[in-house]
Amino acid sequence: MKSIGIDLGGTNIKAGLVDKSGKILFKTSVPTESELGYKHVIEQIIKATTIVIEKDDDVVGIGIGAPGIVSAEEGTVKSPPNIPGWKKVNLGKILSDKFGKKVFVENDANAAAIGEYIFGAGKTTKSFIMVTLGTGVGGGIIYDGKLFRGETGGAGEIGHVTINYKGRKCNCGSYGCIETYVGNQRIVEKVKREIKSNPDSKVVELAGEKLETLSPKTLYDAAKLGDEYAIKAIEDIAVMLGAAFASTVNLLDISTIILGGGVSGFGNFLLTPLKKNLKERVLAPNRPRVKIKLSKLKNDAGIKGASSLAFYHS
Amino acid sequence: MKSIGIDLGGTNIKAGLVDKSGKILFKTSVPTESELGYKHVIEQIIKATTIVIEKDDDVVGIGIGAPGIVSAEEGTVKSPPNIPGWKKVNLGKILSDKFGKKVFVENDANAAAIGEYIFGAGKTTKSFIMVTLGTGVGGGIIYDGKLFRGETGGAGEIGHVTINYKGRKCNCGSYGCIETYVGNQRIVEKVKREIKSNPDSKVVELAGEKLETLSPKTLYDAAKLGDEYAIKAIEDIAVMLGAAFASTVNLLDISTIILGGGVSGFGNFLLTPLKKNLKERVLAPNRPRVKIKLSKLKNDAGIKGASSLAFYHS
Repeated sequence: MKSIGIDLGGTNIKAGLVDKSGKILFKTSVPTESELGYKHVIEQIIKATTIVIEKDDDVVGIGIGAPGIVSAEEGTVKSPPNIPGWKKVNLGKILSDKFGKKVFVENDANAAAIGEYIFGAGKTTKSFIMVTLGTGVGGGIIYDGKLFRGETGGAGEIGHVTINYKGRKCNCGSYGCIETYVGNQRIVEKVKREIKSNPDSKVVELAGEKLETLSPKTLYDAAKLGDEYAIKAIEDIAVMLGAAFASTVNLLDISTIILGGGVSGFGNFLLTPLKKNLKERVLAPNRPRVKIKLSKLKNDAGIKGASSLAFYHS
Repeated sequence: MKSIGIDLGGTNIKAGLVDKSGKILFKTSVPTESELGYKHVIEQIIKATTIVIEKDDDVVGIGIGAPGIVSAEEGTVKSPPNIPGWKKVNLGKILSDKFGKKVFVENDANAAAIGEYIFGAGKTTKSFIMVTLGTGVGGGIIYDGKLFRGETGGAGEIGHVTINYKGRKCNCGSYGCIETYVGNQRIVEKVKREIKSNPDSKVVELAGEKLETLSPKTLYDAAKLGDEYAIKAIEDIAVMLGAAFASTVNLLDISTIILGGGVSGFGNFLLTPLKKNLKERVLAPNRPRVKIKLSKLKNDAGIKGASSLAFYHS
């Protein structure tokens, strides 16, 4: 059994042929070129799909992971950020008319959760919370073997769980959301602020005098060299994530968290204090059960997650 | 159709005969007397049930709302607080053996949510979050017409959603949980601290020079008299609740909150700023949908919630 997964990103549309074990047999990428208008983006989606389906059309279906508000039932994608003019498009119908296959549309965070459930770290768990740490903090909830969608498919927005109600203003309009502390850009900004008081940190050596190459990865590299500031900065992230995760675990009574995305690459510098903080913060009955696993999809997680939709529904 | 509801409280065991509309046809109460040991408490539960069933035994079942960790599947109640010696008791089996009826056991917060769903403010809504504001802050989640239990029946612990990860230490061991700011006792403590800077507040007049009768109700009474301090103190509660509720709504994509318990008696002094804060804090797609309703079960909510379990399962 094979399926096609399409990852609709702001810069590129990635598409791939994936087998039941989650192995990518073939993949391609075309530029999104959203500046040319949303109709062009739809053409690009069709183009990427065509490239894959011409390679092999013996698939159970086509899955699409898209940003924005998705109605899985209707197959529509509403207002994806960064694609001007795109109001509500029935991608499901467009692609099934074009290719004569079953098409499954889901928001990208939910697709990532289903991907872990079908192929990855969630294969052996009936319920878990998937958290993707990147530019933003995304999430998806699998409960008792099913995607927990909420009323409109938007459930799992763990990035907008607040850890400090009087804290920093978030892009969403609220205050103190976890995303506003641990999103990639926010980490970089924080290091830039703090590095002035830590001029001897290896971070400066690695990122250049003007911190021109500074990224979350720099922190990791510095931590590996034993840099105290970097180790502490990653610990701070763990403490904040631990608080947001504890609120989530207490609310859902779901004890497994699967971490994906770039920041999860901090390894044990993040995981060890995160596990400790989470355990200390959850309610007593959850303490012996709570655990954090790392995502297994890593590279091409977007394609794999999207392709898993077709396996999940069939 | 009628059922029996049993509300296992720390001080009293309340039992009642309830019809399908949620009307209590008969009720009784016996002291819990937990100081006499857990076996005695079980005898008291049987006693209360017997009083009701002797009145009318034509019931579809018996529902029990209990504190502690409940396995609805097994019918067991584990480690309820304040009943020494009670480890794990199969209340379901004990009562069904004794009375020959179907028995449904659920934790009290979940029973309250089901009660609102069957009889109350949740009757017309397929998904909502029930929040009970009292000594603690309890919660239960109804999703798509079903109780969302989580892995062990503990889902809905909204009282232990943090609003300030470096905030006040909570009884649960974590920091800044919403319960530690808006639980009844915490409200009283806060007023006692703040009243020194507000000696002319009507609160002092109402509660006595030494604040000997101070309760959350005093704040409400003072607010009704136009007392600025009291109005502001209730607004503070609204802001904090708004933050915890926004995290919850964002995570679950469930847009209706039903408020019950004593503090919800603050009326519009609480509701108006709470609605405003919640709307401002939830993600944009949720803003037009989010709403707060007041619980309809009020008096004897415990009996009604417990009795609703039998209707819910039949």
